[in-house]
Amino acid sequence: MDRPKILIHLDTDPQPSVFDAVVAVDAGVDHLLRHAGVGPEAVLDLVHGAMFTRGPEDLKHTAIFIGGSDVAAGERLLSAVEASFFGPVRVSVMIDSNGSNTTAVAAVLAAGGHLPLAGCQALVLAATGPVGSRVVRLLAREGAEVRVGSRTLARSEATCAAVAAQVEGAKLQPLEINTREQLAAALDGVQLLIAAGAAGKELVPAEALAAAPDLSVAIDLNAVPPAGIAGIKVTDRAKDRDGVTTYGAIGVGGSKMKIHKAAVRRLFTSHELMLDAEEIYHLGRQLSESHLNE
Amino acid sequence: MDRPKILIHLDTDPQPSVFDAVVAVDAGVDHLLRHAGVGPEAVLDLVHGAMFTRGPEDLKHTAIFIGGSDVAAGERLLSAVEASFFGPVRVSVMIDSNGSNTTAVAAVLAAGGHLPLAGCQALVLAATGPVGSRVVRLLAREGAEVRVGSRTLARSEATCAAVAAQVEGAKLQPLEINTREQLAAALDGVQLLIAAGAAGKELVPAEALAAAPDLSVAIDLNAVPPAGIAGIKVTDRAKDRDGVTTYGAIGVGGSKMKIHKAAVRRLFTSHELMLDAEEIYHLGRQLSESHLNE
Amino acid sequence: MDRPKILIHLDTDPQPSVFDAVVAVDAGVDHLLRHAGVGPEAVLDLVHGAMFTRGPEDLKHTAIFIGGSDVAAGERLLSAVEASFFGPVRVSVMIDSNGSNTTAVAAVLAAGGHLPLAGCQALVLAATGPVGSRVVRLLAREGAEVRVGSRTLARSEATCAAVAAQVEGAKLQPLEINTREQLAAALDGVQLLIAAGAAGKELVPAEALAAAPDLSVAIDLNAVPPAGIAGIKVTDRAKDRDGVTTYGAIGVGGSKMKIHKAAVRRLFTSHELMLDAEEIYHLGRQLSESHLNE
Repeated sequence: MDRPKILIHLDTDPQPSVFDAVVAVDAGVDHLLRHAGVGPEAVLDLVHGAMFTRGPEDLKHTAIFIGGSDVAAGERLLSAVEASFFGPVRVSVMIDSNGSNTTAVAAVLAAGGHLPLAGCQALVLAATGPVGSRVVRLLAREGAEVRVGSRTLARSEATCAAVAAQVEGAKLQPLEINTREQLAAALDGVQLLIAAGAAGKELVPAEALAAAPDLSVAIDLNAVPPAGIAGIKVTDRAKDRDGVTTYGAIGVGGSKMKIHKAAVRRLFTSHELMLDAEEIYHLGRQLSESHLNE
Repeated sequence: MDRPKILIHLDTDPQPSVFDAVVAVDAGVDHLLRHAGVGPEAVLDLVHGAMFTRGPEDLKHTAIFIGGSDVAAGERLLSAVEASFFGPVRVSVMIDSNGSNTTAVAAVLAAGGHLPLAGCQALVLAATGPVGSRVVRLLAREGAEVRVGSRTLARSEATCAAVAAQVEGAKLQPLEINTREQLAAALDGVQLLIAAGAAGKELVPAEALAAAPDLSVAIDLNAVPPAGIAGIKVTDRAKDRDGVTTYGAIGVGGSKMKIHKAAVRRLFTSHELMLDAEEIYHLGRQLSESHLNE
Repeated sequence: MDRPKILIHLDTDPQPSVFDAVVAVDAGVDHLLRHAGVGPEAVLDLVHGAMFTRGPEDLKHTAIFIGGSDVAAGERLLSAVEASFFGPVRVSVMIDSNGSNTTAVAAVLAAGGHLPLAGCQALVLAATGPVGSRVVRLLAREGAEVRVGSRTLARSEATCAAVAAQVEGAKLQPLEINTREQLAAALDGVQLLIAAGAAGKELVPAEALAAAPDLSVAIDLNAVPPAGIAGIKVTDRAKDRDGVTTYGAIGVGGSKMKIHKAAVRRLFTSHELMLDAEEIYHLGRQLSESHLNE
């Protein structure tokens, strides 16, 4: 009989995420080992506990999930986890701090369901944050020409440089967007618009959309009113608004949840997976395709 | 197949209660998510994690339990939990900080098994504490005339006012009890006496009981010697002592435990229960009745 | 049906051990209640929660495990746990802080598989630490003549006194070992050598072994290079090196793990076990014998 599935949840917040715990249970995890307030210094012992307790053929029944509201802190844990492994002795790992990976993946997959991403003109707003930069990365890999919007040019350029280093041949354009005119220029000719801004912050007022006559799909990942893109409701899900297909945060949420659950399940199929944005995107696309074939 | 039953245990103490955890497991909970040192500021995220992870038809398989030794702190969590819900999206909640609800319910149910509570003359000692004030509330709802004993009149009056605001038509009499004479007057004509005092504190010396010739039932909820009511042993359970039926803390404990377990089970029958003193009392009475019919 | 098996894991570290948790799950524990950062002051409430939640016939399905990297801190918890029990109401307890018990047991069992321990000349190095002193104790009980090596004579004498108080008729010799000459004298005539020193510290250089022509078994419990005993590899397991049977830390690890798992399973066969070094040794010997008979 198979060993029970153990998920070691390393959370950077003072209280470990209930959200991630419930999803893990519903993904079939038998035992959740939850650790809160985890810093990089605590990782080695915890990971060794995962590596040295089960034989090679059973290692795939133990896995690590990194969560918490602070994505940068989560990424530091991920580095510490990777540094703890040696040789072939390792367990699978997933990172989804603040839901950043599953949210970015769900947004890009939603877009790809309505227009071909390769070669499309895309604008990502608040593109330098944890969700936004993952959206840029995934779009760039799909061959989209991505305008990377930020309030400061330097941060936008830094994100472009980081993505270019990871994605060969990425077509990226850094943009500073602080004025109505800058926004209008950024929107000109855009087919896909994704806003990944902070809660309750309007990035695109209603009148600005007139500057984007080619807009086909608009996705707003902000869940707290007012909307990041005026006119989009959080519950929008492939909603037609004046010829534009729109998604709100909750509209993307159902798919995000399915992807999250599938990724946790996937962890237990091998002992050497590393599920970050790209791997989760790949998984999400398989899910979409299998649904299409049903 | 049903989703696993998840109980989110929010505890205000630095270490989460083992007692409540074992009872939860024995009540059939599949996964316990234990959180220690929880303050109101942490509640919103935790509750949202409960609300937004399962579909409407599965929400009843997730529930929240509030525990810890500090009842006032637990009540602050309860307010924060209630404030986190919106619309029909909620999960069931039970509060039993320091066992206050299940203890008060077990005591009042024990009393009601030996005399009619409606119209009876009852004296509650240490009635302004978390257990005592719940005993007063439950007795008042059953129509008892309740003397609310405290060392300071002001606190007794405050408890009476709070209970009167919750229980329409409550018959309450605030009493300051510091002297032998005050105690004798308080006991005069009383049929039911419940002491909910602090551990190891004698509230009723042996000779004082002579002032209560009509006493029929005496319950002492103090588990640490000396007894709160002289002559009652912690293990007393419907014990006849000179014509008075007596209960000690352990004597009440078996019923308290059954009620606690039944309340946790009940949580998972709906997504919108709020199990505080009254709801748990109602549940306890159903339990007693079903036992009588066996 | 049997109640679910609940293991209350009291850990003295800020994060509870993942190692001990995975072993517990693989030993069949149904619910792990993990407590980190536990000090003696927190023990009473936690233990009472174990004692007062299940009836006498079900108490054996609840047990306590004490872990964490600090063995002395773990022993303070053990005292506090013992002091919390009263009368026959108790649950079984195991202590294995830093793996000290299971490691010492596995080392002594490995030695006993190759030479008769009764009457043998044994030298334990770093014998005053948590693992070393347990090795001394177990060897003394088996009738070995044990040389107790330490850098300071006073500490060695203290360990000898402590073991002599526990083991009647123990044959112990305190030794200060700081120089090449002291080491050579200590090794003279020795058949069994066990080094329980700190990570990465060489206690016996290669040339020193010439002073031990009678050496039959050498066990090095240090897992981090350089080896505590020159020439032994961490993976050595009954390896023949110039006529000496050698074990390294990992070579002992497989047996340690089996003993750990068996001890956790044993906890749930009675409500009144106390599994410290001797009890775990006894259990380990039963395991070895049953394997031999297979």
